Amino acid sequence: MKLLRFGEFGKENPAIQTADGRNLDCTTFGEDWTEEFLANDGLNRLKDWLKVHEATLPEVPPNERIGSPISRPSKIICIGLNYLKHAQEAGMEVPKIPIVFMKATSSLCGPFDPIFIPKDSEKTDWEVELAVIIGKRAKYVNTENALDYVAGYCVHNDVSERAFQLEHGGQWVKGKSADHFAPLGPLLVTKDEISDPHNLRLWLKLNGKILQDSNTSDLIFDIPTIISHLSQYMTLLPGDVISTGTPSGVGMGLKPPVYLENGDVVELGIEGLGKARQVAMNDPEA
Amino acid sequence: MKLLRFGEFGKENPAIQTADGRNLDCTTFGEDWTEEFLANDGLNRLKDWLKVHEATLPEVPPNERIGSPISRPSKIICIGLNYLKHAQEAGMEVPKIPIVFMKATSSLCGPFDPIFIPKDSEKTDWEVELAVIIGKRAKYVNTENALDYVAGYCVHNDVSERAFQLEHGGQWVKGKSADHFAPLGPLLVTKDEISDPHNLRLWLKLNGKILQDSNTSDLIFDIPTIISHLSQYMTLLPGDVISTGTPSGVGMGLKPPVYLENGDVVELGIEGLGKARQVAMNDPEA
Repeated sequence: MKLLRFGEFGKENPAIQTADGRNLDCTTFGEDWTEEFLANDGLNRLKDWLKVHEATLPEVPPNERIGSPISRPSKIICIGLNYLKHAQEAGMEVPKIPIVFMKATSSLCGPFDPIFIPKDSEKTDWEVELAVIIGKRAKYVNTENALDYVAGYCVHNDVSERAFQLEHGGQWVKGKSADHFAPLGPLLVTKDEISDPHNLRLWLKLNGKILQDSNTSDLIFDIPTIISHLSQYMTLLPGDVISTGTPSGVGMGLKPPVYLENGDVVELGIEGLGKARQVAMNDPEA
Repeated sequence: MKLLRFGEFGKENPAIQTADGRNLDCTTFGEDWTEEFLANDGLNRLKDWLKVHEATLPEVPPNERIGSPISRPSKIICIGLNYLKHAQEAGMEVPKIPIVFMKATSSLCGPFDPIFIPKDSEKTDWEVELAVIIGKRAKYVNTENALDYVAGYCVHNDVSERAFQLEHGGQWVKGKSADHFAPLGPLLVTKDEISDPHNLRLWLKLNGKILQDSNTSDLIFDIPTIISHLSQYMTLLPGDVISTGTPSGVGMGLKPPVYLENGDVVELGIEGLGKARQVAMNDPEA
């Protein structure tokens, strides 16, 4: 299945996308795509419900805003420097064990929402990433059965402010957590539809020019390794987002570096998971 | 007011503590102490409701488990190395701007719950801290009015696994996020009851011996500075927990270092905010 959500920010309604690309309003299912939905076997219940009701569901009006495909999760966890060439362009050592950091969940937004350039930002940067959505509680999980804990996959732009991240003292979370720094989606594609999550092209364009173009086959730490590793340190809950790292081609790595300015257009996508598009704008609250 | 919650983990009921120390069941108020409660002027509504109903509220049975005084927040944000002597005992540079890291919100537990020593842990450590609970959405806030965004204060034990935090690669979140690594409470004391949050004694005992004993007057970065600083990088939401740092006397700083073992008893408290007590035990899921 392909799940999505539409409507006003923070008041989204649930929907699914059919094989022929129509978005169907699932409000009458009676549940949003939340932690509770996933925890209570929601994907199987939805599948059964669709067998009966899909033919009569209304289409989502084409002018509706598309939100994050899941409602605010307990965590957004990111893996740093998980592609060899990106570690090199960042001038950092290639990690021997996964580097883990968090984004504030208040940074979550829809895949076509603007990227807000925060107040006093000079180095807002992009990062296309494959995000894994957890399907059930995972603690002390082995790599052998780690994929059992996955609900599905999404496109994620791990928007990053490099000065905040690297020059403002301490930990990376400062540069990862501004509002609209986590555009997710458009789709949560359930894992049964992705034959090999370790062989998906992922790409990102800035103002029409392709800057990131890689494949998840280049991940240093694969998805089972990441899930197993994280689950030794914290309990993963249904709906939790794990962003698996970005390939080379971020603004910080260009010579000279390039950062987002008001009006810049970012497009990104992952094979089988859809495309997103965000326009950078100065944060209206700044 | 002094707010608390009681009952089974994850299914707590709301309560308040009276000036003479009785815990009164507020289930009939109809709301839990959540982000939504705080966002919708819940503290004022509760105050008005208590004027009418306090006299008839049942007492919380004395054998009830006490939970975290707030339900799971969007974030638990911590400030690192915010007491001079603690930075020195940790062998780290005294920060010039606040060091910020996150704990997974899944680490939250009640103030008398056991501290779970995670699988493969050898360095589980304690940290008594003053936690600030945010009362309303805060973004780009100045220090001058930062305290307007505070709902109240709690005792927090920022339990930390030092090997996971410092020796397992990358960011500190790995050593801060295990289940039961954030015992909070017993009370959320609203800010009107604390005349000066920068003059509160805080202390921690291990097996009856006092190891941490300091005062929030020794904070390097005070509460308005912390709130203002954080709100430049991320939007603080009602219910968010900001743990302001620990004074010297953690296990890592002792010579030789001391870490928690199965059966160790940790007691901690802050002037005006109550006392907590946790017994360390090997994680039953390990």
